[in-house]
Amino acid sequence: MPALAAEALDQSNPLAPFRERFDLPDGVIYLDGNSLGALPKAAKGAVLGAIEEEWGRELIKSWNTAGWIDLAADIARDIAAVIGAEADEVSVGDSISVNLFKLLGAARSLRPGGATILADRRNFPTDRYVAQGFARLTGANLQLVDAPEDLAAAITNDTALVMASHVDYRSGRILDVDALTEAAHSRDALVLVDLAHSAGVLPVDLARRGIDMAVGCGYKYLNGGPGAPAFLFLARRHHEAAQNPIAGWFGHAEPFAFADSYAPAPGIRRFQAGTPPILSLKALKEGTRIAAEAPLDQVRAKAKSLTTNFQALVEDQLAGHGFTLASPRDADQRGAQIALAHEHGYAITQALIAHDVIPDFRQPDIIRFGFAPLYVRHADVHEAVHRLRRIMEQRLYDDPRYRAWAAVT
Amino acid sequence: MPALAAEALDQSNPLAPFRERFDLPDGVIYLDGNSLGALPKAAKGAVLGAIEEEWGRELIKSWNTAGWIDLAADIARDIAAVIGAEADEVSVGDSISVNLFKLLGAARSLRPGGATILADRRNFPTDRYVAQGFARLTGANLQLVDAPEDLAAAITNDTALVMASHVDYRSGRILDVDALTEAAHSRDALVLVDLAHSAGVLPVDLARRGIDMAVGCGYKYLNGGPGAPAFLFLARRHHEAAQNPIAGWFGHAEPFAFADSYAPAPGIRRFQAGTPPILSLKALKEGTRIAAEAPLDQVRAKAKSLTTNFQALVEDQLAGHGFTLASPRDADQRGAQIALAHEHGYAITQALIAHDVIPDFRQPDIIRFGFAPLYVRHADVHEAVHRLRRIMEQRLYDDPRYRAWAAVT
Repeated sequence: MPALAAEALDQSNPLAPFRERFDLPDGVIYLDGNSLGALPKAAKGAVLGAIEEEWGRELIKSWNTAGWIDLAADIARDIAAVIGAEADEVSVGDSISVNLFKLLGAARSLRPGGATILADRRNFPTDRYVAQGFARLTGANLQLVDAPEDLAAAITNDTALVMASHVDYRSGRILDVDALTEAAHSRDALVLVDLAHSAGVLPVDLARRGIDMAVGCGYKYLNGGPGAPAFLFLARRHHEAAQNPIAGWFGHAEPFAFADSYAPAPGIRRFQAGTPPILSLKALKEGTRIAAEAPLDQVRAKAKSLTTNFQALVEDQLAGHGFTLASPRDADQRGAQIALAHEHGYAITQALIAHDVIPDFRQPDIIRFGFAPLYVRHADVHEAVHRLRRIMEQRLYDDPRYRAWAAVT
Repeated sequence: MPALAAEALDQSNPLAPFRERFDLPDGVIYLDGNSLGALPKAAKGAVLGAIEEEWGRELIKSWNTAGWIDLAADIARDIAAVIGAEADEVSVGDSISVNLFKLLGAARSLRPGGATILADRRNFPTDRYVAQGFARLTGANLQLVDAPEDLAAAITNDTALVMASHVDYRSGRILDVDALTEAAHSRDALVLVDLAHSAGVLPVDLARRGIDMAVGCGYKYLNGGPGAPAFLFLARRHHEAAQNPIAGWFGHAEPFAFADSYAPAPGIRRFQAGTPPILSLKALKEGTRIAAEAPLDQVRAKAKSLTTNFQALVEDQLAGHGFTLASPRDADQRGAQIALAHEHGYAITQALIAHDVIPDFRQPDIIRFGFAPLYVRHADVHEAVHRLRRIMEQRLYDDPRYRAWAAVT
């Protein structure tokens, strides 16, 4: 694809106006929105207003007058639209790790008979670690299989819950969630999906698919800022019986009644725990506001186009330079990212960063390129491959500065 | 105390310069810093810089270049200085509710034999709720006594952990933590203290007192902003054996190694869970920076002076208006707050707010006045009582607008 063709694609793309809503550094090609999304221009004013006016002037009154008390639920409405759920099935706050723990507790209350949590070794580490910790605390059994494709066959009548990532954080491979859900439900097991690499960039359709539970990230494709609060989803049919093991006051039916005993809020609000971090929520709201406005079919189409173009350019211009595609070749089977394996992956990543192309590196040899469709352009893909080619042809990665980290480990 | 005497006290007070570091609304007497602390002037620039430069320009690189990865530990150092602990005994992040849950899990790993958690019904609701939820999940036994004074006598050899608030959130009464710790340790039980209403305003001296565990709040006397992340303390002697039940990746020995199994970080860092909310932490840092600089003996002396003056003025000027002191009469026995009970407490609170004096109300009839020594002046105390007297003499509280909420409940 010549540069002119890339520009033409960008000009005709219906998502083009969305790029204007982000504040992006000049000259930098940012291909790490799958790790930390870009800054929505509106976030600055929103957080500044929260600091100066709401906190500074109105102080404690702002819980009511500025709607702090409803902010998490307001964001939940945006996220629900993005993941195909109802607003009252989503709870915003805490981290993925904490939300996952809450849902593991909820699963235990929903399936008191079955005690086995089934997961796979390719799932994102924190998911497995939290499940390990939960199992150790409660005596639940954690069963691990090697790959997400092995999960369905491993489900038995003892399985209480199956957990998996919708999109693999390394390869970008999309899991066949429908097959997993069908297999799980046929054994009366629950399904918990981690949407960290899919929410905001793929149609997720939780309700239509009958998925029971999900967790997801605020700071990747939802552009909520560094360490933005996360979210959880619990299908409404489970609300009544599900217990939040972290029974904090914000999940109480009447938090400000200061009642003697815990009485869970009737719906999803019971999955709140402590007081939420308002300043971080204010930034997240500007990210989810944009995500809820972007038509997901257009987002998905552009993600496929960007990754397909990248892949074609890599194969055309970088042949013989030792790269191996570590993502599915078929765009339908991958999210908005492409992983390239290379024996000098770490040094190449550092050289790219030094040349203002920002991917990230995952051990042992994977360079991850993320293509956030709301602000990455085909022209960026073109330029990124151009710079990568120069780095490879001139062996610019072969510089001790870029190998430094590899040398310490 | 006449107004002139109050002003003289303020001018000679060594903490006077600290008030200049806060952005306070004109004409408002803010006596709710025990619920949400005031805005440090430096917080605005710190958060704005984090948004514009660190997130907006440097993006993912800021985890290293802007020190995001060390921010929680940096704040922990400030808080440790304030609560009499070492920096490596404090973990910053999450909410009190979540941190409490983590420590209940840690206590279970430290005292696998004893299964009873002992608490009292006057403790702040979320503490009791979280203990209830933990007990339900794990099968631990939760034993409740009526008042914190009853805790010591209720400890048995089955007690794994005693938990209590250092300062009662309603009355401001200071608990005799030393007696409780002695009683607990004589039975090999652990002590967990909630510092929400003492950290930053009382000497807490955790290490000297041999306290095992504590949780505390970032948004009260530490002035970290609405819903600021909280903290936990665990004495170093327990680190090696203590398990964090919420075993997220930020508590892993090598979070970015993406290892197969959870291996806890060697020290306090194992009590981190998920990715921390950076923007909220940036604001909190400006609050804890100030708290760590303020000499605690001066803070304590001013808190006693403010509450003593308030009490004397109330008794002198509001006699016969139906107020009852619901806090200890002796300043040595209370924190930086005074609670007044009144049958029209809710309406009086609303009338005070309408007259720019901001206390808060706690059911059924308590008006809480908090006196944050870093920015509340004796002149404010004087003026607050003056306005309260006018409200009582003219029965300004007897206005349907101020009774509205009481009518709905």
